[in-house]
Amino acid sequence: MNDGLLALQQRLQHVFSDSKLLVRATTHRSFSADHNERLEFLGDSVLNLSVAGMLYTRLKDLPEGDLSRVRANMVKQDTLHQLAVGLDLPSVLRLGEGEARSGGQKRPSILADALEAVIGAVYLDAGYGAAEALVQRLFKAVEINPQMQAIGKDPKTELQEWLQGRKMKVPAYRVVSTLGAAHRQTFDVECEIVELGQTERGIGGSRRAGEQAAAAAMLVKLNLKPSP
Amino acid sequence: MNDGLLALQQRLQHVFSDSKLLVRATTHRSFSADHNERLEFLGDSVLNLSVAGMLYTRLKDLPEGDLSRVRANMVKQDTLHQLAVGLDLPSVLRLGEGEARSGGQKRPSILADALEAVIGAVYLDAGYGAAEALVQRLFKAVEINPQMQAIGKDPKTELQEWLQGRKMKVPAYRVVSTLGAAHRQTFDVECEIVELGQTERGIGGSRRAGEQAAAAAMLVKLNLKPSP
Repeated sequence: MNDGLLALQQRLQHVFSDSKLLVRATTHRSFSADHNERLEFLGDSVLNLSVAGMLYTRLKDLPEGDLSRVRANMVKQDTLHQLAVGLDLPSVLRLGEGEARSGGQKRPSILADALEAVIGAVYLDAGYGAAEALVQRLFKAVEINPQMQAIGKDPKTELQEWLQGRKMKVPAYRVVSTLGAAHRQTFDVECEIVELGQTERGIGGSRRAGEQAAAAAMLVKLNLKPSP
Repeated sequence: MNDGLLALQQRLQHVFSDSKLLVRATTHRSFSADHNERLEFLGDSVLNLSVAGMLYTRLKDLPEGDLSRVRANMVKQDTLHQLAVGLDLPSVLRLGEGEARSGGQKRPSILADALEAVIGAVYLDAGYGAAEALVQRLFKAVEINPQMQAIGKDPKTELQEWLQGRKMKVPAYRVVSTLGAAHRQTFDVECEIVELGQTERGIGGSRRAGEQAAAAAMLVKLNLKPSP
């Protein structure tokens, strides 16, 4: 382990048993086939549960939908980027030449992903408790603002962001039929997520409203929203 | 704790220290203000991390995007609903009168949510390890299929269904040329979608394989699949 990673360990307050995990967590796919994306997948889930636990305990009166929104605001890329800079991840990140030349060390998405990968590496190295403790230390300085809930997203936006976060295509919307007279039409819209083999329908007084209703139904189907 | 919940504890293989958690986890919002939605929020995150850990360990060669897709398929409402029925959650669910009368015990979304709440309750009662062990027991019978990422459909079928969903004609396949000796021929096949003015080519060791390769190329061209 080089000096940079040794110093990072100190900032993380975690000494790795398997130092290869930390090396991998700080390796971008442009540098090597042994890169950090699978660790990022794990770390993202660790982060979500750790923050869920914090919010569940601290915001006792907040209903589930609001907890989700507050969390989404806390773990968004901007925040993770700032935390990654705070840990000086840019100085240890291993990037391919082209990526480094085009300023990859400063790219918020690369840094946010690397932070999640580091969290995933700690989880694999020492279990959930150690990883949760790291997340709690990192987020000590991050404001928990129940008002964040006010930034409620419409169903289409929420569905799209969820899919994009999972590297899936945006949903396909399609008007299945329209009913009623021209001045008072009802739109029956289908929302399809090809990669998941899922379709849902929604009805609205405009094409857009039908799409939102279909997206809302899909969020319930995918278990991302409680049923109304 | 009533007999129903005692029996549920046995099926869960978890004895609650705080039995109020299990009561709450099986209480729908239509029954009482002390309902299961906040527990569901926690349980959803526990479920996601537990399944992420399973997939990370078992599917060592799968890239991150595919891990996400496989997981999304495993934790979707249909699956959770089946697992909830397997635990006989319908028999212990507490629903408001109206909800019960309209068949709420059988509603997939209510049952899936209750299962997540139960997982969240075990997490709060005994920590992540106990909750992860429960998820692993529950998902023992759930197939982990890396092919889920492609929804099990071959490219020709997928392309055809996409086109039919959009009221377009099926693609035309045409062998452009064959190469090599008769016993070891290679087929160069063209796939054409007349209505979109698109053609793509594919090569395979049989006519059928060539058609599949051409369909796969077309899916990429139409942005329905990530490029390989």
